[in-house]
Amino acid sequence: MSESERSLYLRDVPLDEARVRFEALLERVGYTGPLPGESIAPAEALDRVAAAHVPARLSSPHYHACAMDGIAVLASRTAGASEASPVRLRLGTEATSVDTGDPLPAGCDAVVMAEVVESLACGELALRAPVAPWEHVRPIGEDLVATELVVAAGDRLRPVDLAALSAAGIARLDVVRRPRVAVITTGSELVAPETDAPRPGEILDSNAVLLAACVEAWGGIPVVTARVPDDRAALAVALDVALAGCDVVVVNAGSSAGREDFTARVIAERGEVVVHGVAIRPGHPLILGAAHGKPILGIPGYPVSAALCAELFLRPLLERLGGRGSSEGERVEVRLARKLFSPLGEEEYVRAVVAPIEGVLTALPLKRGAAVITSLARANALLLSPRESEGYHEGECAPALLLRSRGRIERTLLAAGSHDVALDALSAALRARGYDLVSSNIGSIAGLVSLKRRACHLAGTHVLDPGTGTFNDAAVARYCTGERVALIGFVDRSQGLIVTPGNPLHLTSIADVARERARFVNRQRDSGTRILLDYLLAKANLEPAAIDGYERIEFTHTAVAALVRSGAADCGLGILAAAQALGCGFVPIADERYELATTASRLEEEPFQALLEVLRGPELPRTVAALGGYGIERMGEIRMPNAAL
Amino acid sequence: MSESERSLYLRDVPLDEARVRFEALLERVGYTGPLPGESIAPAEALDRVAAAHVPARLSSPHYHACAMDGIAVLASRTAGASEASPVRLRLGTEATSVDTGDPLPAGCDAVVMAEVVESLACGELALRAPVAPWEHVRPIGEDLVATELVVAAGDRLRPVDLAALSAAGIARLDVVRRPRVAVITTGSELVAPETDAPRPGEILDSNAVLLAACVEAWGGIPVVTARVPDDRAALAVALDVALAGCDVVVVNAGSSAGREDFTARVIAERGEVVVHGVAIRPGHPLILGAAHGKPILGIPGYPVSAALCAELFLRPLLERLGGRGSSEGERVEVRLARKLFSPLGEEEYVRAVVAPIEGVLTALPLKRGAAVITSLARANALLLSPRESEGYHEGECAPALLLRSRGRIERTLLAAGSHDVALDALSAALRARGYDLVSSNIGSIAGLVSLKRRACHLAGTHVLDPGTGTFNDAAVARYCTGERVALIGFVDRSQGLIVTPGNPLHLTSIADVARERARFVNRQRDSGTRILLDYLLAKANLEPAAIDGYERIEFTHTAVAALVRSGAADCGLGILAAAQALGCGFVPIADERYELATTASRLEEEPFQALLEVLRGPELPRTVAALGGYGIERMGEIRMPNAAL
Repeated sequence: MSESERSLYLRDVPLDEARVRFEALLERVGYTGPLPGESIAPAEALDRVAAAHVPARLSSPHYHACAMDGIAVLASRTAGASEASPVRLRLGTEATSVDTGDPLPAGCDAVVMAEVVESLACGELALRAPVAPWEHVRPIGEDLVATELVVAAGDRLRPVDLAALSAAGIARLDVVRRPRVAVITTGSELVAPETDAPRPGEILDSNAVLLAACVEAWGGIPVVTARVPDDRAALAVALDVALAGCDVVVVNAGSSAGREDFTARVIAERGEVVVHGVAIRPGHPLILGAAHGKPILGIPGYPVSAALCAELFLRPLLERLGGRGSSEGERVEVRLARKLFSPLGEEEYVRAVVAPIEGVLTALPLKRGAAVITSLARANALLLSPRESEGYHEGECAPALLLRSRGRIERTLLAAGSHDVALDALSAALRARGYDLVSSNIGSIAGLVSLKRRACHLAGTHVLDPGTGTFNDAAVARYCTGERVALIGFVDRSQGLIVTPGNPLHLTSIADVARERARFVNRQRDSGTRILLDYLLAKANLEPAAIDGYERIEFTHTAVAALVRSGAADCGLGILAAAQALGCGFVPIADERYELATTASRLEEEPFQALLEVLRGPELPRTVAALGGYGIERMGEIRMPNAAL
Repeated sequence: MSESERSLYLRDVPLDEARVRFEALLERVGYTGPLPGESIAPAEALDRVAAAHVPARLSSPHYHACAMDGIAVLASRTAGASEASPVRLRLGTEATSVDTGDPLPAGCDAVVMAEVVESLACGELALRAPVAPWEHVRPIGEDLVATELVVAAGDRLRPVDLAALSAAGIARLDVVRRPRVAVITTGSELVAPETDAPRPGEILDSNAVLLAACVEAWGGIPVVTARVPDDRAALAVALDVALAGCDVVVVNAGSSAGREDFTARVIAERGEVVVHGVAIRPGHPLILGAAHGKPILGIPGYPVSAALCAELFLRPLLERLGGRGSSEGERVEVRLARKLFSPLGEEEYVRAVVAPIEGVLTALPLKRGAAVITSLARANALLLSPRESEGYHEGECAPALLLRSRGRIERTLLAAGSHDVALDALSAALRARGYDLVSSNIGSIAGLVSLKRRACHLAGTHVLDPGTGTFNDAAVARYCTGERVALIGFVDRSQGLIVTPGNPLHLTSIADVARERARFVNRQRDSGTRILLDYLLAKANLEPAAIDGYERIEFTHTAVAALVRSGAADCGLGILAAAQALGCGFVPIADERYELATTASRLEEEPFQALLEVLRGPELPRTVAALGGYGIERMGEIRMPNAAL
């Protein structure tokens, strides 16, 4: 078995080992530093990286320049001038009119400001004070002397650097060439991302957009060369074309099993594969190889895996080739607001939302599906669980990589609790004020528990107290013991049955759902909607088992509505806004009050003042009302159910 | 007198007042928020700003997708399956082979992994465990449900956002249009920055490069429309063209006095001028106005004034129009390493170099000339002295705006002391290691005093002790009392007379300089070179007055050499490297030892370890040797003159 064949079947080496092998490969192909320079004009060089030290060609100023409008003189001729005995100078021979920027006339060594010169008759001037040599003159090289360094190799050029280069007479300079990166996506199921109505089984090729944008963001020139069907010959052609025209090739291996081997074989036929499989999550089936002296990265097809593998291997490579140095986000320690399991033996990167709670950066992990690209867009940090770790307990500290700037994370509000469609609108309105609202949908009660544990700023909650028919007060008293909690009015909303359009099963109540054996979608335990369902069941004297689908769980109202809309379920309990958004039918069952719980003492803080201003409108209430199904009368009102504390 | 004529002659309003007037003007022309959106594809939208909230058009996945390669089944058909009594399913009717990503076949609600399915004869399969409904299925909308928010108005789009948009079926979205900004530079003295050999009085138009790059860096599209001579009609035409095609016009008013009025008049004829003159330093003659509904900024001609005025007025305007929010540097408090005078009644921005010294951000102000663009390129912070302040004492705290990232400033070494040409090479070598070395040329002794006062990390020093003929030990003992100082070997260098090429005056000694009444350029007090001069004068029994030009001061060896080269002086005392760099003649007079003094306890710290590695070569010594005139044998050696402490 040849070396390259053997390496084809390598599986899941640890991340460090993959890095070592890739580094050795890059050394073999000579990719140890920045690409060679190319010559461009300073005017085109913004944000480019100088390939070599650039010394000034000309001094600046390149001549002795008058620094004032006035009269150029020889200073020694003004010696002894005073109020009593002014010195007289003949204009044209002993004194010359000059403007700022003019060259200092021959025979002169100073400039007198126009304001202090007296004009006499017959072309003479009078000066009533002596002038020091070189006064109001910018001598040659005052700014920069020829041969002095203007920019150093590796400097990333800013506007002032470009101006300094121009002033130093540099008409062209060498900057590091930007690496050209071919992006090949593979898979017969892929269709152009602009496809209007993809059929079931067709997948919009969003990875081509992702990887091209990553290349661009990291300083490369993306060349999206091909979308290749599952055909070995077609991939081979695309790879050869890419290798001929680019510095690096990225093959997005698609998501169907077996295809990575296919890609690996095509690479190995042309060169070598040093890694096939890395023990990271998400991202296992990464391929690292080279052919014709160019590195090739086989990136897995699931979007989150693709983004992570690109981050771990493509980014450092492009930053090296482009001479840009690392621009990776800040690495920090964060406190975990919830426990996080992670398998031993794998390095796992978990998307999370992070915000400062009472001065401590606190993290809530998000959903983990490798296909869930939106969770990466929503995350503002990646938690890292190393190989030797099985995860973290709540309250433990974990290393994290920030995906947003520190400044922005400092202005982030963390919401944990019940899902509501109108939170999107609130989030957008806060964004306009410079705040990020990030949410984790964990249900009303888990939200209140998080609030009490300092694991979030806000808990969206709508928990019915069956005894009194009121919302939230009893739950706050029970789950936030000893805590002064403020309940900020958000929306009153109509809960009911989200049903197939036209309500073909004629469902009007939970009893109907049971009787008709309608396929139901439930919400997770401790969500307000689940509590409402259980209350309705008890009132109707029904067991959970009477509901077909009681165990089938979704985490948001919209997810429930989407399943109903698709025909995969007949009904679920949820809010009118979600039913309307997805075009489902809706049967109202209960009105409820959805509030935002927070610690009362925080209300005076700046972000909460911004929150209250946004809630009190007029813009946000109008936007939310337009969604339909919401009462907005109590938006921004504050209640203190346990004010006595 | 009309309103607009009166406003022409406004002078030097305070910065706040200028901002208020400009803001009111922007409101009048309707520039209160981002420009309207333009529709583009996600693939083109990296780093653009969403102009509106974008809800998902399609759910992702948009169909129930198999999440495994295997067999799709109806889960209820597998109930009761066990090792002992497997369930048998007929392939084609009760079970269907599927690949990852395939749509879930009709009549199925779960997928079983291929690995756990047993194939029997006659097209039958056996399952030895039951399957839960929806196992290994990605239901519609698992990632994102149609109607959910993908990006919010104002989001600056990253690669993951673009991927999420594509996955959500968004083929085009509205992004804020980038403002088009016309850049007009004026002045008959301006020549194209690529001019090979500008004549005296001609100025390379580096401001066009500066302002265009600023526009680009701040999210606009620069349109360099014209370089206009001092001709009112020509400026009027250029302005009309610019107003017709751009959203904002920047007129760089040139540096000669009176020209700003000229610009202001041309603007006022077409619209209004609300500010002409702002009490800031540098930057006085700023003009703010509007015509044809477009704001016009008349930016002063001196490069530093231009950069500052652009930063203060153009940047916020472009960030607003582009919807990008403020990307201004971090504002911090810094400790002043030297006192700073600043006139009352003006808001002054002083370029400075800042570095953390023993945990405190410490600032050394740089040269202030408004023409010195390189000082802006070298500065890593701007100190602010408000209107009501006369400056700061040494050790006082002052507000500052960081021009580099905090991370980079944390890795900055501050050198204060004697100037040497080889420091450029050291700085470039450290840059490659990720460290910035920033220097303030204040002379050897002031450097040692700064070191003692914790105002710098390194002091470049070459002070002769006339008594012993040795260098630096006596000065360290005198100026760094009680401090364990390490002297790090840098260069041995040859000091001598820098003379006109060919040495036409046949100067061979200081005595010759006095005898020939040669025009001399001196260095500042307390510089090592000045001390050497005074020592040579004393040895030759000469008074300072014997030297023509003893009072004429420059701060660097290269500045001395540049003056000699230009013919403005006949000679000066300085190092061979500077003479060679500028093509001057050189008469050696003394050999001296230039060392880098630092506090001994710092040597173990990481940046100093990097410094020592760089000094010990081999690359840096080779580079410095190539400059000529340097001995590099002691580079990186450490001496402790007062180790007994």
